[in-house]
Amino acid sequence: KALNEVHFFPSEVACVERIFTPSSTHLCSCPLPHGVDTSFSRLLRHVLSASSSMDLCIFSFSNMDLCRAVLALHRRGVTIRVLTDKDYAAITGSQIGALRKAGICVRCSVGSGYMHHKFTVLDGRLLITGSLNWTLSAVQGNAENVVVTDQPELVQPFMKEFHRLWELNEPA
Amino acid sequence: KALNEVHFFPSEVACVERIFTPSSTHLCSCPLPHGVDTSFSRLLRHVLSASSSMDLCIFSFSNMDLCRAVLALHRRGVTIRVLTDKDYAAITGSQIGALRKAGICVRCSVGSGYMHHKFTVLDGRLLITGSLNWTLSAVQGNAENVVVTDQPELVQPFMKEFHRLWELNEPA
Ligand SMILES: [Zn+2]
Ligand SMILES: [Zn+2]
Repeated sequence: KALNEVHFFPSEVACVERIFTPSSTHLCSCPLPHGVDTSFSRLLRHVLSASSSMDLCIFSFSNMDLCRAVLALHRRGVTIRVLTDKDYAAITGSQIGALRKAGICVRCSVGSGYMHHKFTVLDGRLLITGSLNWTLSAVQGNAENVVVTDQPELVQPFMKEFHRLWELNEPA
Repeated sequence: KALNEVHFFPSEVACVERIFTPSSTHLCSCPLPHGVDTSFSRLLRHVLSASSSMDLCIFSFSNMDLCRAVLALHRRGVTIRVLTDKDYAAITGSQIGALRKAGICVRCSVGSGYMHHKFTVLDGRLLITGSLNWTLSAVQGNAENVVVTDQPELVQPFMKEFHRLWELNEPA
């Protein structure tokens, strides 16, 4: 059966520590609510489900939890390619530098318009797309949507467009 | 069979006059290419396909052709509701004022975060969503995506969220 999910934001705020360390027996003592499923925790779980590849096309990326998730995938051996907007890669709080430093392949769009996409394709199989930039204000402040689907009719055009944009934009 | 389309931008630039006046025998003499199908012409055609209702949730709306399409639907008797961001409704070039003037129901989000959605549900049946704001720079300049689908699993959550946001945000 096809997977078709829609998640809306702003997300409730809850601790996501458990999502990163599911096998830990340590109980988190931070002040945030625990054991709560939120739009954001569902998004994070989907991202962390990648086992072989992640192609990420994102206008603005400053969210620390999503950065931690991408770095965790990278350490696990998932092949990651990140295409981002050249102007927004350099703004305060951008995590693009941290991804590069960790050895992840990053390219910046060279066109005159914005690289305004907010999608990722995981394992050539799962598409996550919508209005949501990977920032804290988008997750916790804005009215936003994220579609998660594994339908080939939707996944394949995004994969193809990613490859086209990746070739079009030289490594910076 | 389910409809699932993805359109990428920037769109080629072509004349859209024919889309608005399909039965006209007059040949347009403007300097743009004619008889060309583009991402934007496909988007316009989908928008113009509405026959009973249009619920539009859009962060930024300054595109004149899309405004013309919404006004055409309104004149045809399609029930239109527009929810937009309060800050962006007032910027230069915004078409929100023109919609209001024509008698279309417009509400502005009152939350502290942005109303950052870019989706519309037509006739409670067709969902158009993605990264694309309804502006000229998004259509002709940016790398953007638009998903068009009639799958209930995707359409229904967006309808529900529209109703929730509509009730939440008082008429301005
Ligand atoms: Zn905690
Ligand atoms: Zn023309």
